[in-house]
Amino acid sequence: MTENTQNFPPEDDYGLDVSLVEAVLETVAQGSQQQLLGLLEPLHEADIADILEQISPSERIALLTLWGRMIDGGVLSELEEGVRDEVMRDLPDEVLAEAVRDLDTDDVVYLVEDLDDPQKEKLLEKLEHVDRMAVKRALTFDEDTAGRLMQRETVVAPQHWNVGQIIDYMRSAEDLPEVFYDVIVVDPMMHPIGDVRLGLIMGAAREVLLTELMTDNFRTFSADQDVEDVAYAFNQYHMVSAPVVDREGRLLGVITIDDAMDVLEDEVEEDMNRLAGLGDEDLTDKVWRITKARFPWLAVNLVTSILASIVIAQFTDVIEAIVALAVLLPIVASMGGNAATQTLTVAVRAIATHDLTPSNAIRIVLRETLVGLANGVVFAVIIGIVGVIWFGDPMLGVVLGLAMIANLLVAGMAGILVPITLDKLGADPALASGAFVTTVTDIVGFFAFLGLAALMLI
Amino acid sequence: MTENTQNFPPEDDYGLDVSLVEAVLETVAQGSQQQLLGLLEPLHEADIADILEQISPSERIALLTLWGRMIDGGVLSELEEGVRDEVMRDLPDEVLAEAVRDLDTDDVVYLVEDLDDPQKEKLLEKLEHVDRMAVKRALTFDEDTAGRLMQRETVVAPQHWNVGQIIDYMRSAEDLPEVFYDVIVVDPMMHPIGDVRLGLIMGAAREVLLTELMTDNFRTFSADQDVEDVAYAFNQYHMVSAPVVDREGRLLGVITIDDAMDVLEDEVEEDMNRLAGLGDEDLTDKVWRITKARFPWLAVNLVTSILASIVIAQFTDVIEAIVALAVLLPIVASMGGNAATQTLTVAVRAIATHDLTPSNAIRIVLRETLVGLANGVVFAVIIGIVGVIWFGDPMLGVVLGLAMIANLLVAGMAGILVPITLDKLGADPALASGAFVTTVTDIVGFFAFLGLAALMLI
Repeated sequence: MTENTQNFPPEDDYGLDVSLVEAVLETVAQGSQQQLLGLLEPLHEADIADILEQISPSERIALLTLWGRMIDGGVLSELEEGVRDEVMRDLPDEVLAEAVRDLDTDDVVYLVEDLDDPQKEKLLEKLEHVDRMAVKRALTFDEDTAGRLMQRETVVAPQHWNVGQIIDYMRSAEDLPEVFYDVIVVDPMMHPIGDVRLGLIMGAAREVLLTELMTDNFRTFSADQDVEDVAYAFNQYHMVSAPVVDREGRLLGVITIDDAMDVLEDEVEEDMNRLAGLGDEDLTDKVWRITKARFPWLAVNLVTSILASIVIAQFTDVIEAIVALAVLLPIVASMGGNAATQTLTVAVRAIATHDLTPSNAIRIVLRETLVGLANGVVFAVIIGIVGVIWFGDPMLGVVLGLAMIANLLVAGMAGILVPITLDKLGADPALASGAFVTTVTDIVGFFAFLGLAALMLI
Repeated sequence: MTENTQNFPPEDDYGLDVSLVEAVLETVAQGSQQQLLGLLEPLHEADIADILEQISPSERIALLTLWGRMIDGGVLSELEEGVRDEVMRDLPDEVLAEAVRDLDTDDVVYLVEDLDDPQKEKLLEKLEHVDRMAVKRALTFDEDTAGRLMQRETVVAPQHWNVGQIIDYMRSAEDLPEVFYDVIVVDPMMHPIGDVRLGLIMGAAREVLLTELMTDNFRTFSADQDVEDVAYAFNQYHMVSAPVVDREGRLLGVITIDDAMDVLEDEVEEDMNRLAGLGDEDLTDKVWRITKARFPWLAVNLVTSILASIVIAQFTDVIEAIVALAVLLPIVASMGGNAATQTLTVAVRAIATHDLTPSNAIRIVLRETLVGLANGVVFAVIIGIVGVIWFGDPMLGVVLGLAMIANLLVAGMAGILVPITLDKLGADPALASGAFVTTVTDIVGFFAFLGLAALMLI
């Protein structure tokens, strides 16, 4: 192994080596800048960003102060939003401007989009003219659109060029993008008409026309297109980069796979978080911010659980007569809630990945309902036996079993129909489904169990 | 726009145009092969695979029969496992062999890994010798390792070559990989010592040595490394491809970003599914398979909810005295369960992304506990007031409020400590946490609520 080979992973399973973080903190405590630079120098920007995220705010300030003017723009663009904004507030304007100068324009956009106007202007002033224009244009597009995600840096060739011409151009060009995977072929009006992978250019003779090497699978995005579409297309079609065009179809920039991969991960995480009733929060956020972020879903849950309680309140005389019913209520609620969550999670993901469509919706709804019924019957038998053994009352077992069937059947139906309906109405299927669905299963479960008990046991 | 430009997305938000799926089904019903080929020809393999997944099994057989010998290997490798195995079982061996011949070896591995030995042998026989050897070697590595994910096809250069030599080599080579992004530089023992991005080769003069162009950020994976590490590294370090080496550090193959992106998406989905108590299931699976897959978690949940019921059973005399307690029980359980799920989801994701580490674990545990306490106090006030208004008993409000604080505090602590502990013990933090955590919150919630009621209300 030569010195620039780094094997992955480090010894510790946790990504960053704990002893490294400790060594960094110790060096900061000792105030030795030389030693700190020595520790940070071999690390990837993303790992330095992780160190900054994982230490406490006061340690972070101490580290940044000691590191001083050497901070790299790449590290800033790897930080999660909360820490990034904090760090950028603390850095002197000149240091910031220096750090940002070498970044691709998409990274600059990510850094400056949340700054207030005076600081943003001061920073943009330090960029080269063409980069400044590109960043300003990107900022005119809404957040979560392709226009925000794209970078200006790209390699473009006129459609009449051949392989030799593009190679000669690239050899002589001074500002090739740091990373690029293909050449975009444009017509005289700057409309992208295709792209040619570098590997194909490499393998072709100099006189071959670029238009003969263009990929079949060429797609462009319009600048105001949702990043969700972008991530879907990159994943579905194994794309590595794609041009972004304006309303007239003229080339504005390019989106690369690393950005699409980030978006894809964000989208799945967002679904996962919404299903769990989480808002917008970062791991580095402080207690009061997290508390506020989690409050709304808990409040919704309080209301829906009160609705379920109201159902129980209709049956207090039955419960007074047979107190075993109160003991068994949480089992009914819990089983229905869990079966519904299973179906709901499948449905939310399938909608997000475009796998649940009008073409197969009826089949999937029917299947989920049957699965609910099937597991309902199985657990009806089990819980019925448990009820008989525990309370010695066969009829109680029958009531429990029937309630279980009703509950899991409804859980399956609600778990699939609620997200599909929300999606049809234009709402995010993951956003409100948990609240709706568990309310439905709780209400149906309690009503079935206590209603049947009133009919059959008294 | 020229004819080979495809804009994304199609009109329908759902990815595949519904009318397209309908047109395909109609053509299949009419039995017009020519028309079917005309419909499928312009589509990407991934979209054809989606059509096959979204139609019913009988429609699928009819489509495949009509499509006949023209099926493309790329379509097979885009199918999800259940449908893929079904389709491959139905296809004649010669058609299958023809379809598979042009695939990269990683795609062949994905297709044949679940076949039984005779069919596997028959298929592998049809491959070229070097591909067959590569597929067989890949199959010697465990599932979910880098060795299974890699493809043989790659471009390698000896370390003494310069830019001119590698360009000449690529121009004359007949079997360049279909898609590649860099050249791997190896020493005479075939140990990868670095890689050079094609873009850099393009921009450099012919006499520049490849070793001068190698990236700083070069990483190799060992063939038996977990794909989770691979996906993490690609995402963390914005990698596009990376060599896989054997135990002696010799080059075996290469992993490309599209494979890493698939793994990354799978990993997040797996966490999401496990949190929801889902096993291994595909959207195309049949009712009985899904029912079986969902049974185990529901069974675990039944046991844990019975544990919670046993707690309630200890307090039947209190409930008989004050039946309002039975009405309010689901609120306590529901709030605790939801607060715990919020924390749990954050913890599971943070562990998976290596953001929750020994360096910040104590700080995060403390924070989650405080968030639980803070929201506990807020909801204690709210639910206390609700209790007083509803049942007209101030002491009942106090009991409810105190139980809420205890419950949400424990929810925060359990939500973070259980997954961390499971991870330390080498278990998947997402796998069992839901069961453990809701049991803890249910038991603590019921015990606090009914215990306080026994002490303060009777």
